[in-house]
Amino acid sequence: MEIGRGRKSRQTYGFDDVALVPGTVTLDPEDVDLSCDLAGLRLQLPLLASAMDAVVDVRSAAVISALGGIGVLHLEGLQCRYEDPEPVLGRIASARPEEVVAVLQEAYREPLKDELVARRVAELKETGAKVAVSPTPIFAHRAAEIIGPGKVDVFVVEATVITARHISSRYQSPDLRRLADMVEAPVLAGNCNSYEAALDLMRAGADGVLVGVGPGAACTTRRVLGIGVPQVTAAADCAAAREDYRRESGKRVPIILNGGMRVGGDIAKAIAAGADAVMIGSPLAMAEEAPGRGYNWGMSTGHAGLPRGTRIHVGIAGPMEEILLGPAKRDDGTMNLFGALRLSMATCGARTIPEMQQVEIVVAPALPFEGKAQQYAQGVGGTR
Amino acid sequence: MEIGRGRKSRQTYGFDDVALVPGTVTLDPEDVDLSCDLAGLRLQLPLLASAMDAVVDVRSAAVISALGGIGVLHLEGLQCRYEDPEPVLGRIASARPEEVVAVLQEAYREPLKDELVARRVAELKETGAKVAVSPTPIFAHRAAEIIGPGKVDVFVVEATVITARHISSRYQSPDLRRLADMVEAPVLAGNCNSYEAALDLMRAGADGVLVGVGPGAACTTRRVLGIGVPQVTAAADCAAAREDYRRESGKRVPIILNGGMRVGGDIAKAIAAGADAVMIGSPLAMAEEAPGRGYNWGMSTGHAGLPRGTRIHVGIAGPMEEILLGPAKRDDGTMNLFGALRLSMATCGARTIPEMQQVEIVVAPALPFEGKAQQYAQGVGGTR
Amino acid sequence: MEIGRGRKSRQTYGFDDVALVPGTVTLDPEDVDLSCDLAGLRLQLPLLASAMDAVVDVRSAAVISALGGIGVLHLEGLQCRYEDPEPVLGRIASARPEEVVAVLQEAYREPLKDELVARRVAELKETGAKVAVSPTPIFAHRAAEIIGPGKVDVFVVEATVITARHISSRYQSPDLRRLADMVEAPVLAGNCNSYEAALDLMRAGADGVLVGVGPGAACTTRRVLGIGVPQVTAAADCAAAREDYRRESGKRVPIILNGGMRVGGDIAKAIAAGADAVMIGSPLAMAEEAPGRGYNWGMSTGHAGLPRGTRIHVGIAGPMEEILLGPAKRDDGTMNLFGALRLSMATCGARTIPEMQQVEIVVAPALPFEGKAQQYAQGVGGTR
Amino acid sequence: MEIGRGRKSRQTYGFDDVALVPGTVTLDPEDVDLSCDLAGLRLQLPLLASAMDAVVDVRSAAVISALGGIGVLHLEGLQCRYEDPEPVLGRIASARPEEVVAVLQEAYREPLKDELVARRVAELKETGAKVAVSPTPIFAHRAAEIIGPGKVDVFVVEATVITARHISSRYQSPDLRRLADMVEAPVLAGNCNSYEAALDLMRAGADGVLVGVGPGAACTTRRVLGIGVPQVTAAADCAAAREDYRRESGKRVPIILNGGMRVGGDIAKAIAAGADAVMIGSPLAMAEEAPGRGYNWGMSTGHAGLPRGTRIHVGIAGPMEEILLGPAKRDDGTMNLFGALRLSMATCGARTIPEMQQVEIVVAPALPFEGKAQQYAQGVGGTR
Repeated sequence: MEIGRGRKSRQTYGFDDVALVPGTVTLDPEDVDLSCDLAGLRLQLPLLASAMDAVVDVRSAAVISALGGIGVLHLEGLQCRYEDPEPVLGRIASARPEEVVAVLQEAYREPLKDELVARRVAELKETGAKVAVSPTPIFAHRAAEIIGPGKVDVFVVEATVITARHISSRYQSPDLRRLADMVEAPVLAGNCNSYEAALDLMRAGADGVLVGVGPGAACTTRRVLGIGVPQVTAAADCAAAREDYRRESGKRVPIILNGGMRVGGDIAKAIAAGADAVMIGSPLAMAEEAPGRGYNWGMSTGHAGLPRGTRIHVGIAGPMEEILLGPAKRDDGTMNLFGALRLSMATCGARTIPEMQQVEIVVAPALPFEGKAQQYAQGVGGTR
Repeated sequence: MEIGRGRKSRQTYGFDDVALVPGTVTLDPEDVDLSCDLAGLRLQLPLLASAMDAVVDVRSAAVISALGGIGVLHLEGLQCRYEDPEPVLGRIASARPEEVVAVLQEAYREPLKDELVARRVAELKETGAKVAVSPTPIFAHRAAEIIGPGKVDVFVVEATVITARHISSRYQSPDLRRLADMVEAPVLAGNCNSYEAALDLMRAGADGVLVGVGPGAACTTRRVLGIGVPQVTAAADCAAAREDYRRESGKRVPIILNGGMRVGGDIAKAIAAGADAVMIGSPLAMAEEAPGRGYNWGMSTGHAGLPRGTRIHVGIAGPMEEILLGPAKRDDGTMNLFGALRLSMATCGARTIPEMQQVEIVVAPALPFEGKAQQYAQGVGGTR
Repeated sequence: MEIGRGRKSRQTYGFDDVALVPGTVTLDPEDVDLSCDLAGLRLQLPLLASAMDAVVDVRSAAVISALGGIGVLHLEGLQCRYEDPEPVLGRIASARPEEVVAVLQEAYREPLKDELVARRVAELKETGAKVAVSPTPIFAHRAAEIIGPGKVDVFVVEATVITARHISSRYQSPDLRRLADMVEAPVLAGNCNSYEAALDLMRAGADGVLVGVGPGAACTTRRVLGIGVPQVTAAADCAAAREDYRRESGKRVPIILNGGMRVGGDIAKAIAAGADAVMIGSPLAMAEEAPGRGYNWGMSTGHAGLPRGTRIHVGIAGPMEEILLGPAKRDDGTMNLFGALRLSMATCGARTIPEMQQVEIVVAPALPFEGKAQQYAQGVGGTR
Repeated sequence: MEIGRGRKSRQTYGFDDVALVPGTVTLDPEDVDLSCDLAGLRLQLPLLASAMDAVVDVRSAAVISALGGIGVLHLEGLQCRYEDPEPVLGRIASARPEEVVAVLQEAYREPLKDELVARRVAELKETGAKVAVSPTPIFAHRAAEIIGPGKVDVFVVEATVITARHISSRYQSPDLRRLADMVEAPVLAGNCNSYEAALDLMRAGADGVLVGVGPGAACTTRRVLGIGVPQVTAAADCAAAREDYRRESGKRVPIILNGGMRVGGDIAKAIAAGADAVMIGSPLAMAEEAPGRGYNWGMSTGHAGLPRGTRIHVGIAGPMEEILLGPAKRDDGTMNLFGALRLSMATCGARTIPEMQQVEIVVAPALPFEGKAQQYAQGVGGTR
């Protein structure tokens, strides 16, 4: 496939471009097992809550952990910049659209405080929750020093894009194996979205790989930088790296698909495309317990020079439990996300996550929910 | 075709993606024969009305039968839960959008009553109509017991997805051949949407197969579960199963394409893609005689934990006769659906349904009716 | 290419799906020759105005002829049903949207009058214009009898779809060669949209073939019947029939692409795809001289049983001369249609229509005019 | 690939159809070199500001030059027609939509003045800026005579489409080599959008080639004339011509992609597809220093007979420096365009423009910024 004379390319696919095919065997949803193994950590749900200030704080992380997933606290977010972040969260939520970039840039100008990093980890531990935290690569070693050994269950090194071979004249890339030793926990790393980059990260010692560049609802990387691979293709490519790395090393490094999922069906497609777990933000920002007060924004939205995210209004749909496990009070796929995954897996005849990774996927023209209903109301039925 | 490294897929097609090519021979529409053979039952129109509470009750089933089709009464719907379902239907129609899911969940919480199942069948029989009823797989044997032999013309076992090889730790799948013996009528089963699943159902004794997972206007399965194959491809795939099963068994098991058709052209495409008959809901919910009062909703919309449908406003277009056989008082394809099929077949040179299954189909970019008119009004002509 | 198991299909293309590539030689627009040979009739512009009541009456046909094209008067339209059609045209233009189908059905219920058929032809002849008239196949022989020899320059037998091998138990298909003898003028026939059907019509004696089923802005055939082939593919397919027929018979039968063109670029693409001339309706209904008063509607919109068209608002853009030859007072491509064709041909290095039929066409994602401007106003620039 | 029987075509791609893949090596943005060599002229940014009256006048050209790019002054624009163009610019900005075509046609009816051509060049020179000017082919020799040797840094001969082999019965095409001798500066020529036409221009002496027919936001060439090749394919095709010409001549003629870029990501894709530099208009018309007062329009919009552009509202986003180099006060990709290019290159592992021309591009379904945010606000989250 050529996009111009001699210039090779290939077609890629996102959630709206594919659909799953029911199996020739179907199962009782009750017989489906949703648990996943995240580098030795067993989760009842294949769920990481995104390291975003509108999604994860100590309170929401505790709720998510109790429900079977794990929330990732961003170590460079508002929680570690402000003793009391509530007033700042309030200002962000109430900012008018035309001032929101400036409000965010102002909010993230406040310096990080080592003391708060340590305190948030301790507070989270006290709730009894599984503890996951996330620094960017530049801050990773310092964060590991502050936290010390045995305090977290997972350590997530995350940036828009991360490679095992970053070259900088200013600072050195983090050593993933050394970080794991420092915190005595598995280290996940990302984001990447290609076979080669995922394989490199595995070889560099990542215990799990985050996959997804620019797909999230609150993220504008694809627009601002032109960069991004749609998530279904990214998942399949990086899952191929997982299988090849397993053959070469004997170690199975899980793939966590990060971003772009809005409804239960998207999560089902993510697993079917090859992911072992999903990392989601905006769908959880709709929970009553989420700190975002009905909004979500990307962690690069507050970037001083080049914001690469936006604040979006997601509304508040109900308690986190209803969003994750139902009962759903909405019919649009945004609630009971993992009940939907369970039923989808049963319908596809998949008893476990690894079985779901093998189901048939077809390329299907987008069929938006809204469009269908509107078509009747405006175009076909009703008086015109 | 790959959607990611080593992950095979294939392109699928829906109604908006294809168009029919006129024949090199055209016929007089009067010379076209629309009748179809449904497992021994001869219908003047290749039409089943969907087993939906907004579409089929005793009254509308009688009208549809008189016009040449057959209406399928849902045995687990409101008609078999309430002595008088009218007040409930009224509440559903008048519910505000934000409360409709709760109203539906409440309405379907009322238990089924065996006595009402038997009574509705008797009432329908009394009208002189052809009688078709539909339970879900779990209720199928019990329903057959209640109804007994010789009371229905067709027995339809239907769920979102059904397979001949369902595995459950809680209950046993229905035995289609035994059900046919119990009710002394042909048994249709569905839904499925793949070659393999359709073939399995035929081999398990289905006298007809319903094809369609998640395509309907009031259905959100593709969004909530990620599951669905667009209907043109599903019809062609399952028609291939029909032909292969005919070669292996000598028996021709009809394919009923279920859902997603909104206008006459969609029905024509359904037959052209391989269907022997169509099952439609929302287009008939627009009839004055339909119980939905201008609305339609999926039978999974009232699901307590995970609604997979939505209530849509379809409006009331006219009497059932005008919707099925004209004259059309609208120019948007929603009325005189089978007059349109007749003219379409004549234009394609097809005298019978089996001939229509052979006409040429092309893949064509979507060309929405609304878009064209709007383009003139807003974008090209008129003052801007 | 398969749309389902064993079901072959192919991709087709419309105007919005393609673009023309400038030539490696460009010409001065003044050196371009737009004239075309229509079965012996030389036109300065490759233009037929559609046989639609909102586009062609005696007055507008005279204007179009004077400007270099030819207007086709529909012999079964309002002009031949009413002594004075003006009040009816007024009622159609002023009808509210919800009553327009009924108003049209009522308007076309008035019987045809032989006397008016003859009179309109005579009136048109008196203006000095080139005379083209169009009956449907059923009325063609009777119309030829009424008109008699030597009164028209072109005789156009037109229906939604016409084939040389129509089979009817009620009436006989028209004999194109006999019609040509009766009126002593070339006979164009259509519509068709496939290679085979076009070749059949040429072999049956058509002196020109109209190509286009369901593409027009005021036409809903594709929606109502599911039938249609996008115009770029239809033009190329039927042009291939023209070339093959020329090889077999020595006669070059021109292809007239009928419908779906809205702007100058569409006309350029039509010629480039293989058409010898274009037949357009809605773009001309925007002329001050058009009878439609700012509206257009399909000739099947008034069908009593199954309307297959719609009334659209096109507005009034200016005099016919400005629409055809400029100067354009709009920047949206709807005015100076043939000045645009001239410049497009010059840019593609085509001096004549046959040279334009050879220029390079690429498949290009749709890039709507409106979208681009709106994107700046709403999404990118401006305050959000 | 065929668009009809025997008619070959090929698929082309625009900015919205592709995305870039991050590298397996990433760089520190500070280590990226954005400079480009434009036929001997070194620019710190690979940027030409379009020769449009709403974008470049003496003042804005000076600012753009100081920031590292170069502004191209149109020698047939308002600046060379009016002693004081400000009142005319004001009238254009304040015209109501329905009168804007007439206002533009009126504004450009004022004759060119040789004296103003010379004066604007001198004024620009005095600011210390790099000087680039642009005549159309017809005016090119006369303009070179007026300007004389040594007064400009770049001379740009530009029309909608230009070929080395233009044939006209009225005037002779410009001799690019002679023009270069006359002004003693490199001569860029365009626009073209195919391999063959670009190669022809290089062989005819062009020192740089402008690539882009009809892609700009204020341009309607594709609609009015049907002509255009989407920019990603055009860039790749013409870059192939550059490489082939380098092999045949030893000379590297830069490709300047002209038009259609709106955000930083588009510029990154342009370079990745093969461009050496970009020429942009509408994004710069959003600068406080731009003459357009929040609007932009194509230079063919004022064409007396056939306008092929439109006036669009772009709004005013901030000073030119923020638009080019940040900091961005918007999160939509329209500010800090070259900071975005820098970060995109770093993320793709490209240290220089030539390295960026080699990064991986994938074909990806369009994922509009607006759509994503709206989907949450209207379709998924929030009360419906």
